Amino acid sequence: MEQAEIGLIGLGVMGSNLSLNIAEKGNRIAVFNRSPEATRKFFAEAGDLQGQIVPCETLEQFVASIRPPRPIIIMIKAGDPVDQQMEALKPYLSAGDIMIDAGNANFRDTMRRFDTLKDSGLTFIGMGVSGGEEGARHGPSIMVGGTQESWKRVEKVLTSISAKFNDDPCVAWLGENGAGHFVKTIHNGIEYADMQMIAEIYGILRDGLGMSAQEIGEVFGRWNKGRLNSYLIEITEKVLKASDPVTGKPMVDMIVDRAGQKGTGKWSVIEAQNMGVAATAIEAAVAGRILSSQKGEREAAEKILGLPALAEAPKDREAFLADLENALLAAKIGAYAQGFAVMSAASTEFGWNLPMPTIARIWRAGCIIRSQFLDEITSAFTRDPDVNLIVTPAFAQMVKETDGALRRVVSYAVLSGLPAPALSSALAYFDAYRRGRGTANLIQAQRDFFGAHGFERVDGLDRPHGPWGSGLNQD
Amino acid sequence: MEQAEIGLIGLGVMGSNLSLNIAEKGNRIAVFNRSPEATRKFFAEAGDLQGQIVPCETLEQFVASIRPPRPIIIMIKAGDPVDQQMEALKPYLSAGDIMIDAGNANFRDTMRRFDTLKDSGLTFIGMGVSGGEEGARHGPSIMVGGTQESWKRVEKVLTSISAKFNDDPCVAWLGENGAGHFVKTIHNGIEYADMQMIAEIYGILRDGLGMSAQEIGEVFGRWNKGRLNSYLIEITEKVLKASDPVTGKPMVDMIVDRAGQKGTGKWSVIEAQNMGVAATAIEAAVAGRILSSQKGEREAAEKILGLPALAEAPKDREAFLADLENALLAAKIGAYAQGFAVMSAASTEFGWNLPMPTIARIWRAGCIIRSQFLDEITSAFTRDPDVNLIVTPAFAQMVKETDGALRRVVSYAVLSGLPAPALSSALAYFDAYRRGRGTANLIQAQRDFFGAHGFERVDGLDRPHGPWGSGLNQD
Repeated sequence: MEQAEIGLIGLGVMGSNLSLNIAEKGNRIAVFNRSPEATRKFFAEAGDLQGQIVPCETLEQFVASIRPPRPIIIMIKAGDPVDQQMEALKPYLSAGDIMIDAGNANFRDTMRRFDTLKDSGLTFIGMGVSGGEEGARHGPSIMVGGTQESWKRVEKVLTSISAKFNDDPCVAWLGENGAGHFVKTIHNGIEYADMQMIAEIYGILRDGLGMSAQEIGEVFGRWNKGRLNSYLIEITEKVLKASDPVTGKPMVDMIVDRAGQKGTGKWSVIEAQNMGVAATAIEAAVAGRILSSQKGEREAAEKILGLPALAEAPKDREAFLADLENALLAAKIGAYAQGFAVMSAASTEFGWNLPMPTIARIWRAGCIIRSQFLDEITSAFTRDPDVNLIVTPAFAQMVKETDGALRRVVSYAVLSGLPAPALSSALAYFDAYRRGRGTANLIQAQRDFFGAHGFERVDGLDRPHGPWGSGLNQD
Repeated sequence: MEQAEIGLIGLGVMGSNLSLNIAEKGNRIAVFNRSPEATRKFFAEAGDLQGQIVPCETLEQFVASIRPPRPIIIMIKAGDPVDQQMEALKPYLSAGDIMIDAGNANFRDTMRRFDTLKDSGLTFIGMGVSGGEEGARHGPSIMVGGTQESWKRVEKVLTSISAKFNDDPCVAWLGENGAGHFVKTIHNGIEYADMQMIAEIYGILRDGLGMSAQEIGEVFGRWNKGRLNSYLIEITEKVLKASDPVTGKPMVDMIVDRAGQKGTGKWSVIEAQNMGVAATAIEAAVAGRILSSQKGEREAAEKILGLPALAEAPKDREAFLADLENALLAAKIGAYAQGFAVMSAASTEFGWNLPMPTIARIWRAGCIIRSQFLDEITSAFTRDPDVNLIVTPAFAQMVKETDGALRRVVSYAVLSGLPAPALSSALAYFDAYRRGRGTANLIQAQRDFFGAHGFERVDGLDRPHGPWGSGLNQD
């Protein structure tokens, strides 16, 4: 019997969909699940694709069915189960075989697993897969981290199953060990910011302008035809226009305003902090979800503090809607600039040499943040890969065109008591980043006063302390 | 010879000052330093206090000089050196002896060290000391974590050396193991936010209203007589009024606007993230320091993007100055509310049962953030220890009185391109926290659309998915 090109362990929804995608693209695949019933059911339902699938009920049979060196995708619950599965597999594998973790792992676990296998002759790939269940089935964005040799072995299969943007496959090898999972984490961090900013604009339209869900849906629908064109704006229109089958009311009005999170936003912030990179838009988005979950506290606080009166409504509604569209675009530039800055720092820190234009390129389709905008980022970084996004010519121009709108929108929100933490963080980021002479000279003076921390002088003189003494005259 | 009440290892500036403070308050102290020369020099310069000091040149002699159970303060470089010093000490110690780390340790190291000693009969105190060199010499704020028994042994000495607020000593046992160092970390996180907010107001006065350092110093001087009265406002006046001895210009104008940081701000943010608490004002402050350090990038960005035009100057300057004073007070409430919320979560997470009124009480004097304001926090938490600061009656009233000013100030800054990330984060925090019905319903709808994450309904019905299917109609 012809050997399989690749194997996959874990036939949950994501694993099943990924397997069907692999088979459909003409790749022979061996599959295994801890419970053989799931394997049988999966095979029975595979229809026309059965010819490409080798269902296996033992790990021994599974491993034997794959052409060496064997790439084996592990698609199970993140955490300990992955380590256990790796241990269980090991005795059956031979030198050069590749275990591939396709779950949402913390890249630090991926680094550790990669290191653990180092001297065993086996190797490891940490593979970020974005696009949800549907992406897994019909074309995800795939971020690969591992040795170049192991990438060569899987490149053809992964290219065949990935999403395509104008025929360009959305998959790439991004660097050694944890590079793929790290980039996937930052993808999700950016996704958090993107969603939070959309929600803030929605709040201004709903609570500031008093518009209905249907009306707001129409606004997002129009925006989706312009520079904001993206999957998230598209589904925002759809969910805002959807009716609740039970009450007939707008679906969104029936949903509790308490958002969940699964950790990648938090990891993004923690790693940004570890590397000393400002990622305030992502931080604001994570905080937004945290505060959303404190619903009882919020309701109690509203009773105690009340809500401030709205600022005067913008006189020209169409002009204000145009401002909101531009504000969202401007703020989005800030969030993406921060996300890419975090990846740039990580690239240095971990020696990955992350290819920024390639990352933007493979996010153009398949993943949740896919958009036209990412095509523009690809071009910007192709021209100029080593700078902050907001000073690349195309984006600097966009910032200049749109930051006035962001100022007016944030000012309106701030005066009206409508929370806009991510929009205002992005704006403050622009304003701090574009100002050659900031205000940290005062902070350095204070630190020298109370702690003798010292400072640099603008004239370069080596006189690192102020006339207040060296921190000893604190009173 | 009479035995010493306590011992101290490490005669750097902090250790020397703490030792002199201990001796001066009538406590006999044994001191040891790795290099005996430093010990001899310290003793030689101790003057009148020599009678209370037992200088030791060997660890054996040092330990033997202290009355058992022996409290030994270790005041050396944080990190590995502390572990090495502990190992070196161990052979000379007996059951019940207490090693006290008084450095700026990460509380996770303190937890580990506490655990390490658990079965040895020895014990460990992690002690946060705030107030800089001068505080160490004349009265710091002291935050103690360890067993209650070990606290009893050191309570008298520490009480004698601590700062006093109206005769009330600024020292307390806060909980087991890492509690003291954790609270010290959050103290520093709040300090970051406090300083960043002052710097933002300074920026509005300097770059918005065009005021000189001297003029701005006078404004802070006036504010220090009002509700903002605090050590940081006091030294802000002093540093703004100080002249550079070299050029005669205002000292602050000669200092490079590039601020350093030593890790406690970052730790605050990371732990807030780990516990899922919104700490955006501290995050904004850490980001402010990060961006300040990217001076070259900022100068380049200003050349490319330029600076936006200032918004129209406020017509009534005195009214605007009053707004700035109130804005700073309002934003400060937000930052402190966040800091205390982080400690509240940590208290649950680590089982510390942290006493919030006590923490506010011991920060009223000795430490960098000391202020009148902390006396008001003490009262608020004494009445109501388990709620968010901003809904306690006194602070809710203050928020209502001042948040309008914060709105006007942030709006002015935002329209003028003057960075105010911490002020606007605090405002967005109020606005999200006081709004019973937020906008995360949209985020939940999006998450259900692309990932079948499910949602709660406002009517409690168990229909957790929208009419868009269960995440499989992503296109």
